[in-house]
Amino acid sequence: MKDRTLRIALDGMGSDNYPFPELHGAIDAASEFGYEILITGDEALLEPALQKIDKTSNSQISIIHAPEKIASDESPAFSSRAKTQNSIAAGMRLLKNGQADAFVSAGNTGAILANGLITLRRIPHTRRPAIAVLIPVPDGYFILLDVGANSDCKADFLHQFAIMGNLYANKVLGISQPKVGLLSNGEEENKGNTLTKEAHALIKHDRNINFIGNVEGKEMFAGQADVVITDGFTGNISLKITESVAKMVTMLVKDAIKSNIISTLGGILVRKSIQNTARTLDPNEHGGAPLLGLNGIVVVGHGRSNSRAIRSAIKVAGKAVQHELLSELESALEEQTKSYS
Amino acid sequence: MKDRTLRIALDGMGSDNYPFPELHGAIDAASEFGYEILITGDEALLEPALQKIDKTSNSQISIIHAPEKIASDESPAFSSRAKTQNSIAAGMRLLKNGQADAFVSAGNTGAILANGLITLRRIPHTRRPAIAVLIPVPDGYFILLDVGANSDCKADFLHQFAIMGNLYANKVLGISQPKVGLLSNGEEENKGNTLTKEAHALIKHDRNINFIGNVEGKEMFAGQADVVITDGFTGNISLKITESVAKMVTMLVKDAIKSNIISTLGGILVRKSIQNTARTLDPNEHGGAPLLGLNGIVVVGHGRSNSRAIRSAIKVAGKAVQHELLSELESALEEQTKSYS
Repeated sequence: MKDRTLRIALDGMGSDNYPFPELHGAIDAASEFGYEILITGDEALLEPALQKIDKTSNSQISIIHAPEKIASDESPAFSSRAKTQNSIAAGMRLLKNGQADAFVSAGNTGAILANGLITLRRIPHTRRPAIAVLIPVPDGYFILLDVGANSDCKADFLHQFAIMGNLYANKVLGISQPKVGLLSNGEEENKGNTLTKEAHALIKHDRNINFIGNVEGKEMFAGQADVVITDGFTGNISLKITESVAKMVTMLVKDAIKSNIISTLGGILVRKSIQNTARTLDPNEHGGAPLLGLNGIVVVGHGRSNSRAIRSAIKVAGKAVQHELLSELESALEEQTKSYS
Repeated sequence: MKDRTLRIALDGMGSDNYPFPELHGAIDAASEFGYEILITGDEALLEPALQKIDKTSNSQISIIHAPEKIASDESPAFSSRAKTQNSIAAGMRLLKNGQADAFVSAGNTGAILANGLITLRRIPHTRRPAIAVLIPVPDGYFILLDVGANSDCKADFLHQFAIMGNLYANKVLGISQPKVGLLSNGEEENKGNTLTKEAHALIKHDRNINFIGNVEGKEMFAGQADVVITDGFTGNISLKITESVAKMVTMLVKDAIKSNIISTLGGILVRKSIQNTARTLDPNEHGGAPLLGLNGIVVVGHGRSNSRAIRSAIKVAGKAVQHELLSELESALEEQTKSYS
């Protein structure tokens, strides 16, 4: 745990509604956690916007000029190399040069990954970085990874995702002996595609992991696993289906309530309770998604992040730094590499 | 379209609560659609149960003795070969011998597939059979396949799933020019794992398919595709997550409503509307899942099927026979094979 003030770099042009979610989130995080926040992006945009909402000229917040923005629909690989002055690259450089302890962005996830790989590279012995998200369930959440960094995976990538997800859950989220499950099409050990069966065998023999075996939707949404491992293709589809179905059912219930006058009256009485439920399922409440395996602490926020989500992502980044996640990951991945050879 | 009375074989020991869902479903289907129903299973169990509920000795319903049952947790491959007198095998034999036009079972899906492959084999030129389910969305449903017959797929399997799903949607469900999508982790053509990208290229060039490209959760649950193609691993996980999230959200809403006295009062007024919504999402309302690619019409019901679901599955099977789905599939798959060579 570092004694000095933590410095968090923040992409000022990441979210769909930038820069105000970022600026408000930064101000809140600075005052609440005492962090210094370095906001990357176009000075001409960020300076006046910041002055408008923060008339005290908060000394904990500074702007680092980076005039280019990578849009959410731009090709990550191409734009990351073409726009060297983009706000994500600027954040990665602050991290690389030791001017920041962590970097937070609610921008194009592919571009964050690409810039991270270019500037920070991977932690030694890391096969692939993975994106880990928290998915809310009735009594908490579970961590799902990878949700999109790697469309094609090998079994040893999945084993490393298990190691990284396990350490993140334990060190940063404070879960003791996290229960780690492998997403598959059946609970039995012999269920799965070739990739899953091979990964099952590797993770099962890792004595540092509290492996609970294969899990399906039923177990995941009953909160039976703290960490769920999958390849980035299946994970991304799973995450998006989860969001879409939750949204569809909530909408259907709202529509149903408005469908006749009696239930509309009832709807007025149940509105607050249903809003609380919707909040439980809101990703904004659960902070950012760490990009595990990069040689630096990088946390990705949802494109739709509001200031509360930005503040949460900064909090997650700060906790990862304080609990020295990076050196924990490095040791664990080194140990695993030795055990393979 | 056949002129004579259709004969549908029905597994009498398939569903979790057999035999009453099957018997009631058979009686309803016989009287409603005029089909003859041949119920396979243990005579000693089925005869007295049938007499108990159908005192008129309905001549459209007969019992075909098959004393063995494959339980839902038994190994499909092993039990299908060990228990040659199981109620699924008996149904497949009726189909194979021309004594039935279609077979319906709410039993162990793996065992239905295994028995189907042993007895019926595949339609000529079919690489792999696929299980197709209807997933309800606000204004209807979409067909998802494969949801579990094949954990490891190749691109040409997925192309055939597209051909089969397209024909099923068109001929049996009556959708003209069904919109066919490919489940992927991004809408853009270059998104996906290697399998999906290869399948995309094959399906795109099939001029018999109205291909709308890659789809994600958002498009699927907005009802933008009529048929969604994926491998059996991803499809099975997607189906189970869909069911689990829908169940979780409905439960959270119910709990939220009961959380305080005001909203409990409101809950009484909205109850009926919410029940209607739950019914929209109930798989029992949407009939069975065809096992496409087997050389015979086989429809699988959910293990939790009630009599209404069995009746729906029989209806689906009857429609597939009437619209000559099997010969349609055979011609289409033959044509596709020629186009490859």
